[in-house]
Amino acid sequence: MNSFRFCVPTDIRFGEGQISCLPEELGKYGKNVLLVYGGGSIKRSGLYDTIQELLKDFNLFELSGIEPNPKITSVRKGVALCREHSIDVILAVGGGSCIDASKNIACGAYYDGDPWDLVIDRSKMTKALPIAVVLTICATGSEMNCGAVISNEETHEKLEIAGDILYPALSVCDPTYLYTLPARQTAAGTADIMSHVFEQYFQPYDGAYLTDRFCESVLKTCIHYAPIALAEPDNYEARSNLMWSSTIGLNHLLTVGKGGAWSCHAMEHELSAYYDITHGVGLAIVTPAWMRYVLCDRTEARFAMYARNVWGITEPDDRAAAEQGIARTEEFFQSLGLPSTLREVGIGPEKFEEMAAEAVRTSGIATRSYYHLQPEDVVKIYESCLG
Amino acid sequence: MNSFRFCVPTDIRFGEGQISCLPEELGKYGKNVLLVYGGGSIKRSGLYDTIQELLKDFNLFELSGIEPNPKITSVRKGVALCREHSIDVILAVGGGSCIDASKNIACGAYYDGDPWDLVIDRSKMTKALPIAVVLTICATGSEMNCGAVISNEETHEKLEIAGDILYPALSVCDPTYLYTLPARQTAAGTADIMSHVFEQYFQPYDGAYLTDRFCESVLKTCIHYAPIALAEPDNYEARSNLMWSSTIGLNHLLTVGKGGAWSCHAMEHELSAYYDITHGVGLAIVTPAWMRYVLCDRTEARFAMYARNVWGITEPDDRAAAEQGIARTEEFFQSLGLPSTLREVGIGPEKFEEMAAEAVRTSGIATRSYYHLQPEDVVKIYESCLG
Repeated sequence: MNSFRFCVPTDIRFGEGQISCLPEELGKYGKNVLLVYGGGSIKRSGLYDTIQELLKDFNLFELSGIEPNPKITSVRKGVALCREHSIDVILAVGGGSCIDASKNIACGAYYDGDPWDLVIDRSKMTKALPIAVVLTICATGSEMNCGAVISNEETHEKLEIAGDILYPALSVCDPTYLYTLPARQTAAGTADIMSHVFEQYFQPYDGAYLTDRFCESVLKTCIHYAPIALAEPDNYEARSNLMWSSTIGLNHLLTVGKGGAWSCHAMEHELSAYYDITHGVGLAIVTPAWMRYVLCDRTEARFAMYARNVWGITEPDDRAAAEQGIARTEEFFQSLGLPSTLREVGIGPEKFEEMAAEAVRTSGIATRSYYHLQPEDVVKIYESCLG
Repeated sequence: MNSFRFCVPTDIRFGEGQISCLPEELGKYGKNVLLVYGGGSIKRSGLYDTIQELLKDFNLFELSGIEPNPKITSVRKGVALCREHSIDVILAVGGGSCIDASKNIACGAYYDGDPWDLVIDRSKMTKALPIAVVLTICATGSEMNCGAVISNEETHEKLEIAGDILYPALSVCDPTYLYTLPARQTAAGTADIMSHVFEQYFQPYDGAYLTDRFCESVLKTCIHYAPIALAEPDNYEARSNLMWSSTIGLNHLLTVGKGGAWSCHAMEHELSAYYDITHGVGLAIVTPAWMRYVLCDRTEARFAMYARNVWGITEPDDRAAAEQGIARTEEFFQSLGLPSTLREVGIGPEKFEEMAAEAVRTSGIATRSYYHLQPEDVVKIYESCLG
């Protein structure tokens, strides 16, 4: 195993009704709370009212309308609210977008310049407001990690900001909040979780045996429960296992002893930066294409291991087993109702070269990924997704 | 999944040479350090000198001679040293015994009475000194959890103390420190890790799918690497995977969504409390006997799942698969050179009834375990281990 540091201090409260801890926990930080949320779904579900009632002794200020790919313009509004109202703690209610925006707001509140500066140059980040989370979509794992992805619509950039001070202090994970999730979000969220695992599993180093087994465990859990959650949206066992998979999928546990640049995320971030498609949908399209493109003599043993340990494929030949595993992956995403081609989400070849250049420029995929990708490789992968 | 809280703030520094962080990390707490260690092994290995050199600007006080089953008498000495020298931070160098003693010392330092009071009544525990760990034996997982087991030689009691304030602040896990471990400690440590996993895996609740897969992952890692570590004591990949398995094996991750009383530990604690045998050895003897005793129509499906997912057994009949899995478990412990009968470790039937009564009295095995055990059950299990 490669050397690593593991220190994840987020306090996870998992299970039905855990939201009742909010008054006591938020009270540790102060009375001025910035509530960050997206559209109207938390109002329709009643969660908004529950929070208003629970926090009736607090001063609640609101930043709503956080976009699916959260934009720096929303972050700027949040930072202004923090300053104007001397916010003590941020309460993100939603999925990865709300949490990610909150992370950039949290450090932006202690920075004199534009919060986009912190995305571009992490060394300028010094301090952050505490963040509490009420999770309503399981996908990104942002509830228990210290990273966030922010989009800049002016520059077409979608970049990551990360730092130890950005771990949420508290995350309330109540699987019953997933009952009302639209099927396409359950499906896209599952693709996102699985993609996180793939990115960590398919890395050059082979000696992190336990980490590899943990990756396979999360993948098996997604494969087992996503169809159940789609068929029975209020199946608590399915929702809870998927929710915990999402949290564990990106809280550093699945990368310890390994590490390297992520490939599909780099390619997908350009798709959603240019076309604003759902992140998990983009990943479901790009991932099988990437797998087929990078399958070669050097990589086939790991793809065969994946096929056998995750899909139970018994084919003895490595290359054939690997190909079966990739086919099963693609079929699984399709079975969840996810698009499998770029055409289906309205993307043509017009910007492939521009996006490929950006994907390589803004990531380590040319030098630190499982299979090094140059812009021409990325174009070919995009082309194979065109449909 | 059952509801749970997961909040494990220990800062893990994993890998060769990570000890170099000690001056900076300990310096956060102060200059007065209580060094807690066992026998002379850290002097023979050079680790003692390394620490003296690294901490030459600190005031180091020492508590040596911590026993394999740490005793309250040692804890009392440590508490006295903390008061006498205004200790700022405890540095435990060793395995579970040193860490466990340090945990009781850490909270004892802030308690006016006898530290054994805190073992008997956790509600008296209010505050604890920070604890840093340099791990030299992998087995108990104490380096990343908030529990400790302390023995009282006067009362023949071996009891657990636990509380959120007892998480080590920092744990340095350097797999190269395991290179000089005697083979029997590598073997007993592996049995201890696997027993922790068994205790968490064999519980009544079936809906924590991901947690079960994680348990199987740790078991497979132990089975894969323990023989390699015994054959090649300086195999870094084997030592690092075993070390991380030990930490993960008991840092709460493998019990989330499940829970219940532990059976084999309750029975083994009496063996080591009465006869002072090595904990892992006692577990290796008791575990297969417990498995055979509790195998029944209700439990066979889970034992079959264990046999298939961990040992790759393909037998379609559940009962037959379960029996094969149990046999493989026993054979594996024997293959590590561990004793498989109580006679081999000098234990006869004389105190079976007394120990069985204590095992039931001091644990939840009669009411909250996978298979409820009354004193007469425990006696039968002890008898089947006699040899």
